[in-house]
Amino acid sequence: MKARIITIGDEILIGQIVDTNTSWIASRLNDIGVTIDTTISIGDREDAIIDCVESALREVDITIITGGIGPTKDDITKHTLAKIFKSELVRDEATYQFLKDMLATRGVEFNELNRSQAMVPAACTVLPNRNGTAPCMWFERGGKVVVSLPGVPFEMKSLMTELVIPKLEETFEFTSNVHKTAMTFGLAESVLATVISDWEDGLEEYLHLAYLPNPSGIRLRLSAYNVEREVAEIAIERAFEELKLIIPTYFIGYGEITVADVVANILIERGSTLSIAESCTGGALSSRFTINSGASKYFVGSVVSYSNEVKHNVLGVKNETLIKYGAVSEQVAREMSEGVRRLCGSDYSISTTGIAGPDGGTEDKPVGTVWISVSGPSGTVAEKITFVSLREQNIMRSSAAAINLLRLILIK
Amino acid sequence: MKARIITIGDEILIGQIVDTNTSWIASRLNDIGVTIDTTISIGDREDAIIDCVESALREVDITIITGGIGPTKDDITKHTLAKIFKSELVRDEATYQFLKDMLATRGVEFNELNRSQAMVPAACTVLPNRNGTAPCMWFERGGKVVVSLPGVPFEMKSLMTELVIPKLEETFEFTSNVHKTAMTFGLAESVLATVISDWEDGLEEYLHLAYLPNPSGIRLRLSAYNVEREVAEIAIERAFEELKLIIPTYFIGYGEITVADVVANILIERGSTLSIAESCTGGALSSRFTINSGASKYFVGSVVSYSNEVKHNVLGVKNETLIKYGAVSEQVAREMSEGVRRLCGSDYSISTTGIAGPDGGTEDKPVGTVWISVSGPSGTVAEKITFVSLREQNIMRSSAAAINLLRLILIK
Repeated sequence: MKARIITIGDEILIGQIVDTNTSWIASRLNDIGVTIDTTISIGDREDAIIDCVESALREVDITIITGGIGPTKDDITKHTLAKIFKSELVRDEATYQFLKDMLATRGVEFNELNRSQAMVPAACTVLPNRNGTAPCMWFERGGKVVVSLPGVPFEMKSLMTELVIPKLEETFEFTSNVHKTAMTFGLAESVLATVISDWEDGLEEYLHLAYLPNPSGIRLRLSAYNVEREVAEIAIERAFEELKLIIPTYFIGYGEITVADVVANILIERGSTLSIAESCTGGALSSRFTINSGASKYFVGSVVSYSNEVKHNVLGVKNETLIKYGAVSEQVAREMSEGVRRLCGSDYSISTTGIAGPDGGTEDKPVGTVWISVSGPSGTVAEKITFVSLREQNIMRSSAAAINLLRLILIK
Repeated sequence: MKARIITIGDEILIGQIVDTNTSWIASRLNDIGVTIDTTISIGDREDAIIDCVESALREVDITIITGGIGPTKDDITKHTLAKIFKSELVRDEATYQFLKDMLATRGVEFNELNRSQAMVPAACTVLPNRNGTAPCMWFERGGKVVVSLPGVPFEMKSLMTELVIPKLEETFEFTSNVHKTAMTFGLAESVLATVISDWEDGLEEYLHLAYLPNPSGIRLRLSAYNVEREVAEIAIERAFEELKLIIPTYFIGYGEITVADVVANILIERGSTLSIAESCTGGALSSRFTINSGASKYFVGSVVSYSNEVKHNVLGVKNETLIKYGAVSEQVAREMSEGVRRLCGSDYSISTTGIAGPDGGTEDKPVGTVWISVSGPSGTVAEKITFVSLREQNIMRSSAAAINLLRLILIK
């Protein structure tokens, strides 16, 4: 079963808004076993809308359209759909009454523009929109379905969930698409691909593997299309269990889990606490933990020691160490993690000190040189890492690498 | 001049990610006078890619493709482009050398997959990607241009800004679209719209105003299409100068400037220093400053005092105050800002303490209650703010509000 998503409106084409509707609709359709072949955004132009909808009617089973059905002049989707389905606009009594009542409640005058909202092509079935003024329209032709939805996200979502998805499930018989994602951390994409290439080659024919890199790690997604759900779920589960054995320390978990989530879970489970001393990451590392609720269960505090004075006065890094080795050094990273652990009285601590760039690099210590350290009940470790990236990415990657160093110690 | 944006990758079609690249690219192309007719997302399938690129070559002048050029087996864009432009894959020596050096710096083995990244269709011009392993490829046919970019947002953005846009401007003659954006902070969208409605009504006929709200403030964009650049630039400049007089304390500046940038500029200019004490913002507030290079010129350090022990032991907040008023209170906010200023020896300091949610609210102090305080040479001030939002948004908005409090003191 194939579908296409069409978004209508100039605001996307001029880059004024990010289209979040498409991703949401795609995900819901995938859940019920519908495969999206294409998503497309066009402007409020009759010729483009006709072209697009006619192609979709030829090439796919289900077409979901959002946008362009407001009351103003630039919104022409409804008139164009009336043309495509060779149908006059007629008043939908239920919509008319609903709009009249709703506007009365809000104390808004029921004007010509609102009245026009109750006019729909005679060929469509109206799915009532309880959260706005534009009705949802369902069209059929030769066993194909075209649905027109408002572009306002919460109106669209409520209509999709409550009316469109159930009606699609009544109209068609769906097979299942199954997807599952695993998160890895610590191997570059090319290295990971090499290490797991035998595993990849040995996957069942109908399982598709995709690599999805982001600063939190590289996600691996296994997908199966048009399958028996249970069989595919078991096959994917088994494949990932095998993968775990191949890369045990790099395999973080399933879904959108991050190294920070893994560390947080372990600390909470063991009743252990964490503090952090940051230099080059400047607060971003602490923020990785505190962005999630429940952080106060294990996170006690952190010091962002940007200047050498704060490194010395607050964290107790020795002036000799700063002078002899420089702020970006193994010794300073160690004294920082030990200092903040002592200061905050935590079980574990993490520190970072490095050159995020774009300025401040030297021949010895180029931009992207970062020392990370972890201190805990069984001692202190430190590691040097090097990134070649923009400032923001260097900060994100240093943060993730430092958290991962703690993770490796916790799971040892 | 017409353009099309094509996004390649199954992750969009299954709804796993929201496509933010398209909006960003559309906005940049609009800035230089290019009109986007359609944006389209397709999967990693050769037939779909060929169809889509061939149609674009017939119908528009410029085609921008993102995604599908990683080193792994699921990425087939490069091979398909080689087919479309009837061209063999050859090794690009500059890319080869760059990849080799970059991976050596990172200590990653230069394997077969990386070597394959340096292979490009002979027909293309390579625009070097300094932030990743996939090169950007520029193709021409019959006066039309096709550009293939990596899908990783920061790599794509850096390539577009530094190489693709300048090369497009060399290749084509664009008529002018003029856009300029001003940033405001501190007024809700509906209030701002009311306050400036006379100004809006008095704008020149050909100037279009758009409201673009985000957590850093509400941006106002004035646009003029197909105009004489100089005339439009002067008219827009004049309009914004008038706006400044209407909302002097809410008008932050032009472009993507934030309240943190304004504060940073003033502190650097005056040679003053800043420290921060954070509770509910958990490092995110410090990160607003340290994300920009040059932060070390004024930012000395911060303390994230999540637990009461750290508030007391490190920042010197009195235990009586914590017990009597609770951690989320004016008194604690004040002692935090004064404490961190003393500890770090800075001229100014900011503090935050609040309930970011979703848990931890009470009837007295519901989720979204935040106290912010600023301490400086002329004393300490504090302010209570209330947000009704999700945790992440509450953190972002508290950070921005706290920085704005310092800005208002600095410009007084």
